[in-house]
Amino acid sequence: MNSEDITGHLMNAHKKNPDLVIEGGLVLTMAEGQAPVSNGRVLIKHGIITDIQSRKEKGEGPGLQTEVIDAKDAIVMPGLVNAHTHAAMTLFRGLADDLPLKQWLFEKIFPAEAKYLNPDTVYWGSLLACLEMIASGTTCIADGYFFQDETVRAVHEAGLRGLIAQGVIDFPAPGVPDPKKNLEVAREFIERWLGFSALITPGMFCHSPVTCSEQTLKGAWEISRRFDLPLQIHLSETSDEVNEVIRKTGKRPVFYLDRLGLIDKGLIAAHAIHLDEREISCIFEKGVKIVHVPESNMKLCAGPAPVRDMVNAGLTVGLGTDGCSSNNNLDLFCEMDTAAKLSKVYDLDPVGLDANTVIKMATCWGASVLGLEKEIGTLEPGKRADIIVVDTHQPHLCPVYDPLSAIVYSANGADVKDVIVNGKVLMKNREFTTLDPVEIMEKVKAISSKISI
Amino acid sequence: MNSEDITGHLMNAHKKNPDLVIEGGLVLTMAEGQAPVSNGRVLIKHGIITDIQSRKEKGEGPGLQTEVIDAKDAIVMPGLVNAHTHAAMTLFRGLADDLPLKQWLFEKIFPAEAKYLNPDTVYWGSLLACLEMIASGTTCIADGYFFQDETVRAVHEAGLRGLIAQGVIDFPAPGVPDPKKNLEVAREFIERWLGFSALITPGMFCHSPVTCSEQTLKGAWEISRRFDLPLQIHLSETSDEVNEVIRKTGKRPVFYLDRLGLIDKGLIAAHAIHLDEREISCIFEKGVKIVHVPESNMKLCAGPAPVRDMVNAGLTVGLGTDGCSSNNNLDLFCEMDTAAKLSKVYDLDPVGLDANTVIKMATCWGASVLGLEKEIGTLEPGKRADIIVVDTHQPHLCPVYDPLSAIVYSANGADVKDVIVNGKVLMKNREFTTLDPVEIMEKVKAISSKISI
Repeated sequence: MNSEDITGHLMNAHKKNPDLVIEGGLVLTMAEGQAPVSNGRVLIKHGIITDIQSRKEKGEGPGLQTEVIDAKDAIVMPGLVNAHTHAAMTLFRGLADDLPLKQWLFEKIFPAEAKYLNPDTVYWGSLLACLEMIASGTTCIADGYFFQDETVRAVHEAGLRGLIAQGVIDFPAPGVPDPKKNLEVAREFIERWLGFSALITPGMFCHSPVTCSEQTLKGAWEISRRFDLPLQIHLSETSDEVNEVIRKTGKRPVFYLDRLGLIDKGLIAAHAIHLDEREISCIFEKGVKIVHVPESNMKLCAGPAPVRDMVNAGLTVGLGTDGCSSNNNLDLFCEMDTAAKLSKVYDLDPVGLDANTVIKMATCWGASVLGLEKEIGTLEPGKRADIIVVDTHQPHLCPVYDPLSAIVYSANGADVKDVIVNGKVLMKNREFTTLDPVEIMEKVKAISSKISI
Repeated sequence: MNSEDITGHLMNAHKKNPDLVIEGGLVLTMAEGQAPVSNGRVLIKHGIITDIQSRKEKGEGPGLQTEVIDAKDAIVMPGLVNAHTHAAMTLFRGLADDLPLKQWLFEKIFPAEAKYLNPDTVYWGSLLACLEMIASGTTCIADGYFFQDETVRAVHEAGLRGLIAQGVIDFPAPGVPDPKKNLEVAREFIERWLGFSALITPGMFCHSPVTCSEQTLKGAWEISRRFDLPLQIHLSETSDEVNEVIRKTGKRPVFYLDRLGLIDKGLIAAHAIHLDEREISCIFEKGVKIVHVPESNMKLCAGPAPVRDMVNAGLTVGLGTDGCSSNNNLDLFCEMDTAAKLSKVYDLDPVGLDANTVIKMATCWGASVLGLEKEIGTLEPGKRADIIVVDTHQPHLCPVYDPLSAIVYSANGADVKDVIVNGKVLMKNREFTTLDPVEIMEKVKAISSKISI
């Protein structure tokens, strides 16, 4: 037998004896060209999807030893990928709203971070984020922040999948008082966690082209390349930032970063609002990954991103919530709805970002942004079992003419009933299996009671 | 004793022996200049709020006979007012999405309405809407549609408060095959329901200045004036509509309607997107009420309304969801969030529509739009007890630095735990007391299974 034959043989053997089965429901695989499977059955063994069947054709399911998730009156779909967030910022949810971005960042968030972030607060803030994300159907995140050992710990304990990146900025930062050491701290973080878990990938997050010097950007890029890891960055979030880059470098941000070598398929650029057509073309040619963050972009008056144009140009675009201080929740269902509606009213085009497109952004395209498209993002035999079950037996999800429409325009995170990551059930009938919600919320309330800015 | 003394005496007597008490929680009264009451107690007798106390100061609560709502770890606030909806359109939720407004309306919605609306389907569609609205904290609606006897029946059975209006349009319409009789049908509807219930006000709804003739508009206005009832209308939802009015009448829609006498405090104008400054001034001077419908405006590419300018100009602006075929849910929490964020990104002004403003739109200002500001919209002694309790013991609502921010930017309708209308509990701990959710959803699913357009 060659290697492919062996895989096929194993898959067939595993189908007969799954660990976990999702019974019933409409299975939205999100695999290209594949119609939803009604009254479906999803078989899972050793964390891998081994088969997706129609119960009608296949008859009786597996035996009594297998754990069963009941998906009657539900939609079964890939877990959502939050491709841009700062988990521990749950600590600052609602601390500062209705402010201009610069004032919000420099007068509120940066001071709050300097004063209140430490390994303990980042751990509990990240755990709260994990709790909220599980509760609203997110199974994989791309995170960038400080004291990231603690974020790794929280994400690992929660059982989520993630690209967890150490923040890099040329100011004194939480846990990195000397900015000269920011790259060293990040490199050590990567070395510490590389290979630790199949679910967690460490990485680096450069704050932006204006808060990181040319030297820092190039250094971060070199380290990321050395470990073959994606590098995250905030790109062209405000027009001020764009103007500052032009003033300093004579180039628009994408061309400035291109000169430094960063405009490449290893770069994940969040926001990407103030881009011109030439920048979009350049990003497409070089394969940079984009993360659309519509609610944060709206709330901070950053502007609506040209996301329809980017999608039409063939860019890989994921979806993110940003941190909880600029959203103020981590619910990707709301984010899908907002992404679709904002594009319609901004582009005056009802079709450009339709329901199918924004679900792709939150699932398979999001997986591609993180470089995980071979592992997750669709429900297909051989892929890791990152799956959510959305209960449609709810007044606001009745009737369902089109499951894509129901997911984007009618549902919210609270409709998620079950969450599975890598074959492990993290939430069943809205009960958490890995985290203690009361302990986490009490702990964060105690921390927040001492916070004031 | 004069009349005011008698009221005061009765209120004092009632305080001692309430029917219903809400114990604990943070009470957001939304009364002008009033700070939230922490660890509060709201007393209710005969459907009226008799007192709002701080439990700390007042000590022990009422005796055992009184029904108690537990609001520990919750926000207690006025029930939300959905000032523009078409309840029975739940039947068409998700039937037609991602289409331009004209195509959506003329190729999908109008044909679906013609083919599938009848008293039975409107009744069940409206019941489903009531179920969804109770589940997401709406206690009062302004509705306009057809077969409205059935909407009245549903709203009455649900126990909600509402302005229920018969649709008027100069085409053959569901239940009104001869458009010549549209005013007669509406007048008879009003006569049939006026005085039927303290919670339900009948009325008329003119579809728009382009789908109703001058004669129809004037006739509808005269009838509404005769009964001293508000008249609802869709105003300047699309630029096409504005251009058509200008072409036909030589005037922009507000000035055309002003010539007919409709620009007056009795008019409730929904959408109000394509208004110029002079129209906004005219509307302010004459006291027309505005309903902002942001999610529908976005989804149908109608455009963002100049709502910040209208609020700044002093207009009375409420908030609505529109029907479920253009939203696609009836969740006013999402609508508040979208209203605030859309204004920020559209006006590039983070302050214009802050959290406090959009909550007012969904509560006290919405009550004013419907002419019910003396009865509902704030929590104050003497007002009707239309109250919701929002459970903040949830990951996405932790921590709460500012209750206004939590309600607008973090919460959604599923966080509503208890709903009270006119002193009657319609939902307690998310269990419905007046409606049977399984029966209603099964019935609507059966109806929808036969619908295809």
